[in-house]
Amino acid sequence: MSSNRAGRPRARGTQDPDRTPRQEILDAAAALFGESGFAATSTRAIADRVGVRQASLYYYFPGKDEILLELLEASVRPTLDLVGAIRTAAPTAAAALYALAVRDVGTLQAGPLGVATLYMAPEVRTAPAFASFREHRAQLQAIYAELASAAAPAGHPVGPDALGAACLHVVEMVTTLPPRPGLAVEIAHACLGLAGLTGPVAAEAATAGASLLTGLTPATTAV
Amino acid sequence: MSSNRAGRPRARGTQDPDRTPRQEILDAAAALFGESGFAATSTRAIADRVGVRQASLYYYFPGKDEILLELLEASVRPTLDLVGAIRTAAPTAAAALYALAVRDVGTLQAGPLGVATLYMAPEVRTAPAFASFREHRAQLQAIYAELASAAAPAGHPVGPDALGAACLHVVEMVTTLPPRPGLAVEIAHACLGLAGLTGPVAAEAATAGASLLTGLTPATTAV
Repeated sequence: MSSNRAGRPRARGTQDPDRTPRQEILDAAAALFGESGFAATSTRAIADRVGVRQASLYYYFPGKDEILLELLEASVRPTLDLVGAIRTAAPTAAAALYALAVRDVGTLQAGPLGVATLYMAPEVRTAPAFASFREHRAQLQAIYAELASAAAPAGHPVGPDALGAACLHVVEMVTTLPPRPGLAVEIAHACLGLAGLTGPVAAEAATAGASLLTGLTPATTAV
Repeated sequence: MSSNRAGRPRARGTQDPDRTPRQEILDAAAALFGESGFAATSTRAIADRVGVRQASLYYYFPGKDEILLELLEASVRPTLDLVGAIRTAAPTAAAALYALAVRDVGTLQAGPLGVATLYMAPEVRTAPAFASFREHRAQLQAIYAELASAAAPAGHPVGPDALGAACLHVVEMVTTLPPRPGLAVEIAHACLGLAGLTGPVAAEAATAGASLLTGLTPATTAV
């Protein structure tokens, strides 16, 4: 999509040419929601940050609820979309857990830094506008609970509920850490550790999990 | 402290007699901050929720910044105050990590449910009023990083920074889970797993960690 189409004039011309106006709006909104909170951020402020007129913003989004919902959904949906393929390709629950965590980190890193801090906003936790996101995040947590408890050795002292919540929180913390190479691998190994898998057993799961990810078709792996 | 002293009249008389007015204000504020966000909550709304006059609230707190700061500090300071005693008493870094996680969960469970969701509020992450809390939480994270990396086996694929952040997030998630017996033990075992310790090695660290906690003097263990 061109950023110079008639009808959506730019107030400034300093934007990254590789990003669509829609993406620029999402990035600016994420930054402002993080800085000032969702309630205190107006669509006017978002438009000003992007350097477009407010009317141009409404061409892309009906309002700020829809902007936040798209940010939130973009942080969970691509991962959920891969769960079926990962389950099918994984030789073990441990390999599936590792692969899921790596891809989940990738999904979160593809979005704006700090997006997971928005999960705790009062509106996100309670408003009907964000119910679909809460449901999708709960689905992801349930999948972590299932895979981690299936992968855990007998007698592992951390139960499914705590495992699901712990894996989800450990993966989501990536949005609060400065990006660096290898972080996805560290976080995926942290999830294996939560499930009681370390040393050679964890190394084997990591090899199988990494291998199955490279085998997924490009269409399914795109984030 | 009596809740019926002259000069601090109650608008209603329905409060729990075991809680001080100060504690009732903190609990009501935590609930409102969680429901509506910090920015959208007034001291008037807090006073109304408690059932006291706004002037009575100001007898206890200069303003809502100080109320939030006390809630935040109460969620980290009691744990930090125990770190020296835990280090001194612990036979191994793994035992210290286990004991620290158990007590940290206890500190968080002693406060209002959901207090850790306030950590992500824009004001808490950036405003000078909450700098001391951010420093104390960072200290706690650094201690987790140090203990977990000292406890981890050679070649553990999760580095100190990720370990510190992961332990902190896994412990803090307790404020989002319904309380239940055994949760502190599960979460402390989750921290051992993050450090690559499972099975008999983790069981030994848990035994030593639990034992050292019972040996701490009551004055030090109070939360």
